[in-house]
Amino acid sequence: MVIEAIQKRRSMRMYKTDAVSEDVINEIIKAGQFAPTAHGTGAVEFLVITDAKMKKDIFDIVGQDYVTEAPVLIIPVATDATVLPVQDISVATQNMLLQATDLGLGSVWKHVVPEWAGKIKEMLSIPEGYHVINMVPIGLPNDPDVIEHADDDFKIEKIHREKW
Amino acid sequence: MVIEAIQKRRSMRMYKTDAVSEDVINEIIKAGQFAPTAHGTGAVEFLVITDAKMKKDIFDIVGQDYVTEAPVLIIPVATDATVLPVQDISVATQNMLLQATDLGLGSVWKHVVPEWAGKIKEMLSIPEGYHVINMVPIGLPNDPDVIEHADDDFKIEKIHREKW
Repeated sequence: MVIEAIQKRRSMRMYKTDAVSEDVINEIIKAGQFAPTAHGTGAVEFLVITDAKMKKDIFDIVGQDYVTEAPVLIIPVATDATVLPVQDISVATQNMLLQATDLGLGSVWKHVVPEWAGKIKEMLSIPEGYHVINMVPIGLPNDPDVIEHADDDFKIEKIHREKW
Repeated sequence: MVIEAIQKRRSMRMYKTDAVSEDVINEIIKAGQFAPTAHGTGAVEFLVITDAKMKKDIFDIVGQDYVTEAPVLIIPVATDATVLPVQDISVATQNMLLQATDLGLGSVWKHVVPEWAGKIKEMLSIPEGYHVINMVPIGLPNDPDVIEHADDDFKIEKIHREKW
């Protein structure tokens, strides 16, 4: 059931360095590709970084130890074909986070501010009009203190009926 | 497995009018609440519309027959507690789309342009600094021509390795 992965998915910021196979990476990206896109343009593509030097260069821009620690970084990129790049990238990312969870892997949404995005795009030869807003480290989780969502986390008071 | 719901989820634009129970609506919103939010603010709340007159008033703003046809409309609202309202609403929405699919229901991401958002916020007494960017009709699917994603839809050429 989907809800199990949804409850299990938590932001992981410590990773084991064990490699993740190309097949598994592709399964995660496939989940991202099957997310909806505005007007069905399918405008989201995916950059996979596993090279240690590349990860170090990205760390130098965005900080966060887990960027170098995680064996894989996936950067979802919205092309200029979409009018809603933030939405398209966001839903593709959420599908990847859930699929990674389902495959026993940890992940986290690392926000990328526009200044960093410009540097990253230049470094990775991503075309000018394309959009980078985040990146997703993937790897075996290495923080036992991260626990899954429980039913108690559900806040019924955040549901409004008919009017605010 | 998550991938099954991910493949099954397609945009549904025709609904049966059968009611959806409050428990089921809450299960769907719970999935939305368990999506990550920027800095963990949990800034997304949820407005549930089932009243026919309210749905008609919303239809008058956004168009689309399915807005009145679907028994439920869920509007995720980001409060002013988040710095990334579009991302937060998007991932909450994606979780809800997947959970609705898993429960045998259809749904679609209906984009709400800023002009409509202003009118909807006023109509539903949503506070000024809060954000509406979409709405999600939910109901039994009524379009047999909508088919799930197949492995053939996966486009390996949209994966770039190390560089664009």
